[in-house]
Parts: sequence; C-alpha cells; structure tokens
Amino acid sequence: MLDTAAGTKIQNVLSALNRALANRKIDDALELFAEDCYWRDLVAFTWNLKTLEGKAEIRDMLENRLDEVEPAGWSIDDNEDAAHAYGVTEGFIEFETAVARGYGYIRLKDGLIWTLLTTMHELKGHEEPSGDSRPMGAKHGAEQGEPTWAEEREAELAELGVTRQPYVLIIGGGQGGIALAARLRQHGVSALIVEKNERPGDSWRKRYKSLCLHDPVWYDHMPYIKFPENWPVFSPKDKVGDWLEMYARVMELNFWGSTQAKRASYDDKSGTWTVVVERDGKQVTIQPTQLVLATGMSAKPSVPKIPGQDLFKGIQQHSSEHRGPDEMVGKKVAVIGSNNSSHDICAALAENGADVTMIQRSSTHISRSESLMKHALGPLYSEEAVANGISTEKADLLFASIPYALLADFQKPVFDTIRKEDAEFYQQLEDAGFMLDFGPDDSGLFMKYLRRASGYYIDVGASQLIIDGRIKLESGAGVQELTENSVVLDDGREIEADVVIYATGYGSMNGWAADLISQDVADKVGKVWGLGSDTPKDPGPWEGEQRNMWKPIQQEGLWFHGGNLAQSRHYSHYLALQLKARMENIPTPVYGLQESHHLS
Amino acid sequence: MLDTAAGTKIQNVLSALNRALANRKIDDALELFAEDCYWRDLVAFTWNLKTLEGKAEIRDMLENRLDEVEPAGWSIDDNEDAAHAYGVTEGFIEFETAVARGYGYIRLKDGLIWTLLTTMHELKGHEEPSGDSRPMGAKHGAEQGEPTWAEEREAELAELGVTRQPYVLIIGGGQGGIALAARLRQHGVSALIVEKNERPGDSWRKRYKSLCLHDPVWYDHMPYIKFPENWPVFSPKDKVGDWLEMYARVMELNFWGSTQAKRASYDDKSGTWTVVVERDGKQVTIQPTQLVLATGMSAKPSVPKIPGQDLFKGIQQHSSEHRGPDEMVGKKVAVIGSNNSSHDICAALAENGADVTMIQRSSTHISRSESLMKHALGPLYSEEAVANGISTEKADLLFASIPYALLADFQKPVFDTIRKEDAEFYQQLEDAGFMLDFGPDDSGLFMKYLRRASGYYIDVGASQLIIDGRIKLESGAGVQELTENSVVLDDGREIEADVVIYATGYGSMNGWAADLISQDVADKVGKVWGLGSDTPKDPGPWEGEQRNMWKPIQQEGLWFHGGNLAQSRHYSHYLALQLKARMENIPTPVYGLQESHHLS
Repeated sequence: MLDTAAGTKIQNVLSALNRALANRKIDDALELFAEDCYWRDLVAFTWNLKTLEGKAEIRDMLENRLDEVEPAGWSIDDNEDAAHAYGVTEGFIEFETAVARGYGYIRLKDGLIWTLLTTMHELKGHEEPSGDSRPMGAKHGAEQGEPTWAEEREAELAELGVTRQPYVLIIGGGQGGIALAARLRQHGVSALIVEKNERPGDSWRKRYKSLCLHDPVWYDHMPYIKFPENWPVFSPKDKVGDWLEMYARVMELNFWGSTQAKRASYDDKSGTWTVVVERDGKQVTIQPTQLVLATGMSAKPSVPKIPGQDLFKGIQQHSSEHRGPDEMVGKKVAVIGSNNSSHDICAALAENGADVTMIQRSSTHISRSESLMKHALGPLYSEEAVANGISTEKADLLFASIPYALLADFQKPVFDTIRKEDAEFYQQLEDAGFMLDFGPDDSGLFMKYLRRASGYYIDVGASQLIIDGRIKLESGAGVQELTENSVVLDDGREIEADVVIYATGYGSMNGWAADLISQDVADKVGKVWGLGSDTPKDPGPWEGEQRNMWKPIQQEGLWFHGGNLAQSRHYSHYLALQLKARMENIPTPVYGLQESHHLS
Repeated sequence: MLDTAAGTKIQNVLSALNRALANRKIDDALELFAEDCYWRDLVAFTWNLKTLEGKAEIRDMLENRLDEVEPAGWSIDDNEDAAHAYGVTEGFIEFETAVARGYGYIRLKDGLIWTLLTTMHELKGHEEPSGDSRPMGAKHGAEQGEPTWAEEREAELAELGVTRQPYVLIIGGGQGGIALAARLRQHGVSALIVEKNERPGDSWRKRYKSLCLHDPVWYDHMPYIKFPENWPVFSPKDKVGDWLEMYARVMELNFWGSTQAKRASYDDKSGTWTVVVERDGKQVTIQPTQLVLATGMSAKPSVPKIPGQDLFKGIQQHSSEHRGPDEMVGKKVAVIGSNNSSHDICAALAENGADVTMIQRSSTHISRSESLMKHALGPLYSEEAVANGISTEKADLLFASIPYALLADFQKPVFDTIRKEDAEFYQQLEDAGFMLDFGPDDSGLFMKYLRRASGYYIDVGASQLIIDGRIKLESGAGVQELTENSVVLDDGREIEADVVIYATGYGSMNGWAADLISQDVADKVGKVWGLGSDTPKDPGPWEGEQRNMWKPIQQEGLWFHGGNLAQSRHYSHYLALQLKARMENIPTPVYGLQESHHLS
C-alpha cells in the first residue's frame, strides 16, 4: 500500500541515523532505537551473520565496527512502498559502507527502530556482471588465435583441481553446493564441487521414489534462473534432479561426480587445505584456500542402537537407503519414526500393497500443506505474492528481517489459525491415536525446522491414510528390542515385521567434519544448526542465529552451507560475498565470532 | 507514457467496433478504419497468418468469418499504457472470440484505425497450465500404485513413436523444433522431435567454431525459461547448444537424436502421415497426424556449379561443413560469398594464421552490431527496454503489429540514422573495395532477412579486418572457374587457393519437402520464406506475410516452422495453437489460404 506518510517517517529516522553514524555519535544513534530493539546484520557491518538484541549489544557492535564500516547514504528505497499497519511502520532501505552497497528492511514502533535488517548487497568494484554489465560473449576482432568459449570451458574442466587449484572446494553437490558454486562463478571465484553421486541432482534422484518437495515452487527457486510458470507446485524428486543437472551445466559449474572426499587437513601457516578425494577410483589431492561442507543436513544417517538388531532376520534399512515400495509388496513393514520421511515412505508402501505400521515414539507436528501455503508461506511465496509484486528476492529479505528472537511470536498466530481451521482434521488424527504437538511454545512447523530440523510432517496425504487406518499406527512408546521377526515396544506391544525402516533422522553436520578432518576440529566447531532456543534437541544458550551456518566458525577456512532450497538460495548470496572478499584480500574482521557450546 | 486521453480515444473506437461487429454491421465497422488501413490477424479470425490491406480485404474477411468468429469484449488492456505521439494513438487491446481469448495492438490516425493486430492468445477451455493453474506435482494419497513422475516419463520416452503415435512429428531439433515441442507439451499435444544430430543443440555445436549469435540475448529468449541476467549478449554457439539441450530436458521433450528422416507420404483418406526414419541405424515408421518441417533455413546447402570443381586439388567445402580454422593455419583459403557466414569464417581464419581471401560477387549490406542494438533492436529488445517494462512477449507483439507492407517505411529511417552515424566506417569499407548496399529501397538489414534471408552481415569485428587488409578482398566479379590450385574470376583475376569454402547460402526449405516427400508436394507447396516484395531473391506477387511459414499451406497436415530464435519463440505460439485446435477437433476453417507462385 502506498503510504507517503510512512515513507517520510522512515526517511526521517534514516536521515537522523545517517547523521549520527557519520559523526560517530553512537549515543545519538541509539536514541533512534526503541528499548526493545533488534539489529540483524548479514555481512554488511559484522562480516558475520549476527543479530544484536537490545541497545547494549548494538552499542558494542558500533563501537567496534563503525570506524571501519563507514556507513552512509541511508535512505528508503524509492522503488518500494513503505507501509503502516498495527502500529508498525516498515519499508525497504538502502545504505552504503566503505566497501559495499547494502540493502535492508526497517520496522518502526512509535517512531523508533524496533527491527533493523542490514545486508550486504554487493562489493563495490566487484559487482556481478549482470544485465547491462553482462559479458559480451562474441570475441571477434580480438587477439589472434584466442580460444573459443567451448575451448576455454574444456580447458577449465580439465585443469581445475588438477593443475590449477580452486580457491573454494565445495564438498556436496546438492542444491546447496550448486547454488553457492553458481554465485561464486558470477563473482569470478574459482570453485570446484565434489559429489559422491555420479550426476548433479542424484542426491534427489536416489531418495525413495514417491518423494516430492514439501515446499511449493515459489519458495524453491534457485538463484539466477527461476523455475518456469508451468513448473509443478510440489516438484517430484527426479524433476528437481533434472533441473539441478541442467542448472549446473548452463551455469558452467565445475562439478566432479562420482568423487568421494576422503580426508582433509588445514595448514595454518599457508592458510590452505589439503583435501584428498577419490575420483572414479583414483586419488586426487586438491588444495583450496576455502573448504565448504555442503553435504546437507541429511548427510549423516542416524540409526538408534536397539537390542536384537543382530537377530532380526528381515531387511533393516535407514530411510536414506530406502528406494520405494516396489520390493516390499505384500510384506510387513515397520517404520520407526514419524516425521516427513516416515510419512512419505509409509504412504507409498500403503498405496502399493505393503502392510505398513508406523511406530511413533514421541509427538509430532503436522501441518497440512495447503494450510501452510495459505497462511504461512502464501503472503511471501505464492502466485498471489508474485502478483502483488513480492519477488522471491524481496520475500527472502522480508523473511530475513524478522529477528529469530521474535520469530516464534510472529509464527504462533499463524499456527493458531491453522489449528482452528483444521480442527476436525487434527481431531481425526488424535482419534486415530496420533500424538500431535505444535512445538514447545505452539510456534509450529518452521520454528521446529530452524531449531532442530525435525519433529514434523508437512501433510500431502499420508495423514489421511493414518486416519483411514491404511497406515497402521503404534504410538506412545519407544522401541525396546527386535526379535527375529518383530519389533517389540517398551510397553510390550509386538509388531510383526519382514522389514524395519529407520526413519530416525540425521546427526549434526559437524559429524561430517569429524569423519573428513578430525574429531578435534569437529569438537572445536561444535554443533551445527539450531538457534540455542533451549527447546528439545536445541540446547541453549541462545545464539540469535543458526549455529555455524553460512558464516565464519571456530575453524579458519571452513564453512557450513545448506538447508532447504530457499535457504540455499538466499544464504549462498552472503556466503559467496564472504568468500569473494577473502579472495580479493578485502579486510573481513569478524565481529562476534560464535562460540561453541555443544559437541554435537 | 501514461496518456488517459489516448486510452479513452482507443476505448471509444473499440466500443464502436464491438457494437458494429456484435450486430454484424460490417459497414459500420469499416467506417472506423482509415482509408489506408491494415488488419494483421494471427490465427484469431482467419485460422491463418494473414494481413488484410485496405477496406475491401477487411470487408471480405469479415463477410466470410464474422458469424463464426463472434468477436466480443473489445477493450483496451488496462494494465498497459496507451500513448499518443506524432499523430498516432496506440495501445494494447483485448478481445474474445467464440473459441478463444485474443490480444492485440491498435494504432489510430485521426481517430480512425490505421493498423490493427489481432492474435489468438489461448483457446477457451484449453488454457496452458501455468501460474495458478500449474500442475500440483505431488501425488500422495492418490490411487494405489500410481506411477511416479520418473516412471511416467520413462514410459513415455519408450512408447512414443514406437507403440503409441505422436499427434505431431517435428523433423529438426534446433531452436525451432524445440520451442514448438515445448509449447505443444504445455498444450497436452503429444509431439516427437527427430533430429539427425546426436543431441539437442548439436545443430549449433557443429558449426564453425568462432560462431556466436549475431542477435543479442534480449531478442533470443526461448519460451517459458528466459536466459538469466548474466547470459552473454552474443552467446557463443556451444553455450547456445548447452542451453537447448538442457531446455529440451527440463521441458520434458521427446527428442530422438541420431535419427534421419528418410521418406514421408500422406494418406488423404486417413489424414495421417507415414514417415520412415532411421534411428541409430534402425528403420522406424512413425504415423503422425501433423508433420512439421523445422529443419531450418540452413538445411539445404546451396553450392554453385563452377567449371573446374573436379580439377581443384585442395579442399572444397560448403560453409555448413566448415569447422573452424584449426586445420587451415598457413594455408591459402578462398571464401566465396560475403554474407554472415563468410565474414565469420574469414575473421576466424585471419585471426588464426590462414591467408584468407573473401570473394565478393555482389553488394552486401553491413550493419555494425552495436548500431543495430542501439537503433533497431534497442527500443524493443535490450536492458533498457526491460527496464521500461517492455517484456519479450510485449516486444514480440509490438514488432508483429507493424504490417509487412509498412515495415520497410518503419525501417528506412532507422538505417538512415545508422548510415549517418557510421559514415566513416562505411567509407573505410568502400575504400577497401567492399561493395555496400542498404537493400533495394534502403530499408536495411531486417527487410533483407524477411525477404531473402541473405545479403547481409551483422558486423561483430570482421569488417575491421577487411578494412585493415587482414582479410583480403576481391570484389565485383563472379567466379568463372577453378583450376588445380586457384579460383579464377570473370574478369581474369586469379586467386591462389589450397582451400575453397562456399559461403553461398541455402536453398528454399521446400527443397527439403522434395527430398523427404516428393517433388510434386514440394512444387504444390512452392517457395518458402519471403514476402513477395519483388526485390532480388523475393519475387512477387506481394504476399503480405512470410510465405508458407507457421501457417496452413497447400499440403494438408504439413507445416514449415523455423527462423531465428525470436521467430521460433513467437511464431511457435501460433503454430502450437493451430495444431492444438486441430487435435481437439475445433473447426479451423482457413481464410485466405496462400497460393503458390514459385517452385523454389
């Protein structure tokens, strides 16, 4: 909504902020903030992903960083409409620093800054070639014998990682690694992806055959090339695989498939990694300056130790090994766990003539996909949002502008609404014996994802199969033991089984660092993911940001990257800028480097 | 520019047109047209591509078609700004017919219709699934054992053309065939592409190695998926190849590579084709209802017969066979011809140490690429145009809205400007002996393309090499004969040569129909391409549209499709709608079926 009064109000605050910061008057700047205030900075001020909560933290950051950052040019983005509603005045903003152009979002309450988002948009003098500044392509009339595009590309593919070292080595070629490599290429940062599967997209293709994205297409775009308008809302896994393969090719990524990373070590003196990989069975040593682990949150399957696993005569597999129901027709299958994978796997088994039982050990959050679309994602990521002029990039910034400390408060009403609208559905699930929850503070699905990346199912049909009894359910007890042909629960219930599938999730990503580098480095870095919310599987203290993700950590030259498609898209932007700045020897003093509190 | 007066003026005319046509008052409708008037219709009224010139032709069309078309709902498109300048009031319009939604463009002079473009946008009840109506993708909770996306796709690839016949068979898998197949898939029309090269994109990859697109990226987008913002302005051929290959994959096209079409015949009674192809060396018979020749204007290499060709001891090759300069370093190369290919080939040879002579037999139009961008394409297809809100789709319609009869008048001032701005460049070329022209009526490059698809070079550097003498030039005479080691011109000049390259262009596309179907059908169909402008290589009578392209022709069930990337993009829309309507048995009476006047 066009609200010129809102725009003026914001511009006045920004002008005052501009003056105060230009004159290094931190007290004056702080007076523009409300008592309850949050400044989330993505790289622009802190060379970190950091949320400053309250005036004291903001003061400390400014005292440390202001002289170097030299912020200037704070103004409202004239191309976007500011708005005022429910006592909050808000809008997109622009600013500059000594080395970068910034973009952000501001919310005022009673004329004072309640939330401020500052992000680095681009490094001055290192802008991505795009639009007007895109490369010319044709090279006629240039020097004699200049190689063609195809010859240059062929040479690069032959040399990089072999006779010429990449600045960045990315381990893992899923959406995370691919999105980051695409951005790095645009930045002119040489990067190589190594991926254990043969082709880009295989990390999707190799999952269970009924898998579709649980997030809708508007939320899932990769950087630079959007899915077309005819792309399905919930893309089947193999179609995502094909897209990623296509994307890696046309974005000219350096991708080594069928390559296993074996071990890595960091030389503090030279500031380089030595990484040994096995490529098509042959050992190759790569020496990058930066090492990115983009192996995903689903890289380290977690299988509980249960007495009797050695006695069980049927098939046991982790959900990541499960390929689909084809070989399980007519069999009795027990699936341990009750999150996304378990539901998907159980549904496909039930629909294909297996006798399937889900074993629910603890309560699970369920959101119907349509309800999530309508209430949670719709305002930012939907056909309607696009029609309202909310591009994916704007939606990403709007979402990022809500400090994690406030996010649960923002989310709770959304899930209260869903709970009310879908009351009958939830009642039916409970009647079927399903143990439901909405998170420890009723903040719903997305907070569960951010805190623990587990504990929920986005319902695209399996819940109805549970309600109808087509997926049998045994809930409310742990698994005590396996026998030769059954699963026995704590309370003595016994479920006959030819197959046991462990849909029991994944370990922390630093486990991967332990395997690849050393337990010491993994311990130094500590737990990856989570906010420190002091809720189940997300121990405190409060971090204010995702632990160890997309930002500097306790190990120099090591980075964790990943998350869902949306996070891979958005945060790869900031990770790419951090890597680019380091390559260009732009000083990147990190403010507020995160401490490590948990080993895993 | 927002001009509400212009909008009102247009709306008044459209309302009057609406009334007149609704009441079948053709006289009243004609009174709304200026004496000098043009109505270009793409499928909506005529099931043809047809320009009606003057009131008498418009009357005849309306008398024949009005009752069936039932046009209604004429209005200005409220989302677009109407404009008034230089005495012309113009804007985008919407309308409906009995079976379709239409879109178009109108220009008024003195309140009367000067030009009217009507196009079919979509068939009612057969809209493409897109945006809100895109497929869901996920299929959980559906019938038991339903196949996954990957299984369905695999089955389709195995069956189509083998155990299940495609409705449309497209011969030729370049940008034309691929763009059309992508649209047909969205329409739910089963289509199969057969292509002699192995992979999509090979028709680009296999050309001479220095080839880049001569048209800029904004003009070259494929339907549905736009090139990203970092794509080069003039894409190298192998990069275009990769894009087409990936596009074919993610758009789920049915593409048989390494497949030669051997012969085809049409059965009038059953209305189906029998097409024999050789796929990986094995004969397969395909029986489509519709046969599209998308083999391109560069499918039938044309090599002149010259005495002594049997005596010449060196290499002779047509430009389409030339792979680049690598094997010609240090050799004397004579290139016969002076159009795009000749210039590109000569430049690469000169830059790579060959001794190259261009033999210019007749005058050639040269436009510098930057000048074309600035003056000819820029207003519609450029970064600036995008910033001005002119999407590719709008630009295509704006360009299509100019009747071919007026196009030379629209183009001449553009090329007058270029001629003036680049006067020094042209002088230098003439000083080097180059014979220049700007077309028979000084209308420049694009008219030459539309009339004869030859006679020009878009300069991306080779002209400077001619000016500098790095490409030697012999101009102003035909080739009389070859000797063992030279090319002898009409006037006795003799050019020593180890290699002769014939950059002598291509024959009419109906030659392809002769090879594949029969000489009878090729003759019945007649010459393909050109406007009938009665200028060199485009004999009259005046056609008002491109001969035989993208529309019904004298052979039932046979279609020609192709052109540059822009035409492949835009006209595939209308060809797809014509094929879709036929598949759905929607009546498609063709008004004004084109007669054939020339055999080739």
